[in-house]
Amino acid sequence: MTDTDYTEITFDREDAVGILTLNNAGKVNALSRQMIGEILDLLDRVIVDETLKVLILKAAGKHFCAGHYLAEMVDTGVKEYKFIFDQCTRMMMRIHEIPQVVIAQVQGIATAAGCQLAAWCDLVVAEEGARFSTPGVKIGLFCTTPMVAITRAIGRKAAMEMLVTGREFPAAEAKNIGLVNRVVPLEKLEETTRELAYQISEASGFALSIGKQGLYAQADMSDAQALHYAKHTIVMNNMAEDAQNGIKAFLEKRTPEWKNR
Amino acid sequence: MTDTDYTEITFDREDAVGILTLNNAGKVNALSRQMIGEILDLLDRVIVDETLKVLILKAAGKHFCAGHYLAEMVDTGVKEYKFIFDQCTRMMMRIHEIPQVVIAQVQGIATAAGCQLAAWCDLVVAEEGARFSTPGVKIGLFCTTPMVAITRAIGRKAAMEMLVTGREFPAAEAKNIGLVNRVVPLEKLEETTRELAYQISEASGFALSIGKQGLYAQADMSDAQALHYAKHTIVMNNMAEDAQNGIKAFLEKRTPEWKNR
Amino acid sequence: MTDTDYTEITFDREDAVGILTLNNAGKVNALSRQMIGEILDLLDRVIVDETLKVLILKAAGKHFCAGHYLAEMVDTGVKEYKFIFDQCTRMMMRIHEIPQVVIAQVQGIATAAGCQLAAWCDLVVAEEGARFSTPGVKIGLFCTTPMVAITRAIGRKAAMEMLVTGREFPAAEAKNIGLVNRVVPLEKLEETTRELAYQISEASGFALSIGKQGLYAQADMSDAQALHYAKHTIVMNNMAEDAQNGIKAFLEKRTPEWKNR
Repeated sequence: MTDTDYTEITFDREDAVGILTLNNAGKVNALSRQMIGEILDLLDRVIVDETLKVLILKAAGKHFCAGHYLAEMVDTGVKEYKFIFDQCTRMMMRIHEIPQVVIAQVQGIATAAGCQLAAWCDLVVAEEGARFSTPGVKIGLFCTTPMVAITRAIGRKAAMEMLVTGREFPAAEAKNIGLVNRVVPLEKLEETTRELAYQISEASGFALSIGKQGLYAQADMSDAQALHYAKHTIVMNNMAEDAQNGIKAFLEKRTPEWKNR
Repeated sequence: MTDTDYTEITFDREDAVGILTLNNAGKVNALSRQMIGEILDLLDRVIVDETLKVLILKAAGKHFCAGHYLAEMVDTGVKEYKFIFDQCTRMMMRIHEIPQVVIAQVQGIATAAGCQLAAWCDLVVAEEGARFSTPGVKIGLFCTTPMVAITRAIGRKAAMEMLVTGREFPAAEAKNIGLVNRVVPLEKLEETTRELAYQISEASGFALSIGKQGLYAQADMSDAQALHYAKHTIVMNNMAEDAQNGIKAFLEKRTPEWKNR
Repeated sequence: MTDTDYTEITFDREDAVGILTLNNAGKVNALSRQMIGEILDLLDRVIVDETLKVLILKAAGKHFCAGHYLAEMVDTGVKEYKFIFDQCTRMMMRIHEIPQVVIAQVQGIATAAGCQLAAWCDLVVAEEGARFSTPGVKIGLFCTTPMVAITRAIGRKAAMEMLVTGREFPAAEAKNIGLVNRVVPLEKLEETTRELAYQISEASGFALSIGKQGLYAQADMSDAQALHYAKHTIVMNNMAEDAQNGIKAFLEKRTPEWKNR
């Protein structure tokens, strides 16, 4: 596929920042088989794009994402359902695997798998009216896959409340419990997210990719394992051109130049 | 045992909500061998009660629970102490194993094993005057068992402070650090807890049980393991009658009916 | 070495409280090979000092610690870099291994490995003007080792933001995300930290050491493993003289006396 083959997403890039837009506002950007397939296709291109440092994941229309496309999840069969969740899980894993920092830009609702998608991104910027919820329990389909993202982002008590009540957590509350990095007025949402993306993209792409991938790599390790992983990683990093140049620039009080922009 | 054999707890049920009351206010509801035994007996009945969806764990009198019954923990021997902690640990594990969502309703003090009990419940509603503490360190008996619950509910820094200082964390602070879901005036405690329980009990019992048990099942897994567990769970869930009915009801904008009420 | 051999740190003790001071304000207390070696030497003495219960880790001058001494990290080679991070990692592991509760007393900046050092201590008291940051990404050397400490103290979203932006988190924000226990005006910093240390040192040293070491020992275990570890630990603790004396004193409403002061 190329960008122009996509029908439910769009992709734009400006310098080292890519912008993936969920583009099916008429269906509240539901994660249909088609949309998941397109996102996976794009992430497979992004993962080998060494010039891209940050990926913004945003959505067209009033809302971020309503979750799975439920019409595809009734009256077919287990094979079809398994395909959807296999693909959706691959998409989530890919978001952590890619070297780019991924920022979710959230307006309106982020519901069920849409909440999972936001919570699974590396960073989340939300507008004041954004609402996060995992209401699957209300339709007999517990948000088990969103639960993985939510329990790894916030505390157990808040996670359990989100999951068993299904109620909407407004942006301010989502910030308090640690699900969101920044809350801004709707009219500042795009600008704030871009500024954050561009600020991050000032760094060496090599260093960013070590860090973004490393955070998840060591998250599941014991303390001792993680310290060992981290010390070998930082020694490797310290030998690299960008670190040697960066440290010298710092010591000489000048701006570093990256080999690995 | 039947309900009427209990001497230190009571059990009541209304529709799909059960109410377990620690009922030894004269001893500040201390977790005596007798009380732990009765709770275990009740949980063994609850775990196979398919009509019960939510369990409220509340306490008679001014306080929730003062912890272990210390008079049983001096001047006997290691066998007796091991029995108490074996039983107490079984009780805690059972609280996570049962399919019902367990809500602690906390007034006054929740101390040591009483703090563990509240922190280990799925959700916690507390009145404004409630205080949570793990003061074992002050009597030479570090709150190691409560530590397991506390470090899994809140951050390491706050947990360490609770445990090595033993100071009381008032309800508002407990909310800030993530130990408590809701803080309400004492006169609203019962009503708020019941409303929450009844709201949760509207859901399919099948979906609730998948979610409540699943949260703990996947909490210890790596990210990748948890995603795999979750995708297979939700596919199984999606095939079930309640999900198929629930999704159709949602698409048709009507209230779902549960087979597994 | 003895205390008087140290050139970059000092060590003082008052009763059961030890005070380790990073004492190279001219280099913003950078963690040079020399300083790390001296801290390791001191911790090796502290770990077998059964009369010491609490260790305050503070710093001379306007700032806590600027991180590694970067001049040692350019233009040498991988063997030298590996030595630095091996030693630094040993130092971090030792901080969790020692039986004493370690309190970081933070003024000014705590940057990169300096932020790691504070975040890795058991408790953190900071003055209002303190700032925590992991800006390695800006010099091409991602703060991978600090990441281990930060991701174990705070939530993933806030940790990712600290690490990929490198921005300073002021003390109040650090408190909100759980990195810091207490924030006080600069003129109260020393006093608050000492009061906390002395309060903690009232407890049985035996009980404190079980708790401090135990928190990290069980942090990486599954829920079930942790409960088993904890129940055996507390039974052993319960048999000890300090617990038996402490429980009796509590039941008789008198102040306990510790064998293991």
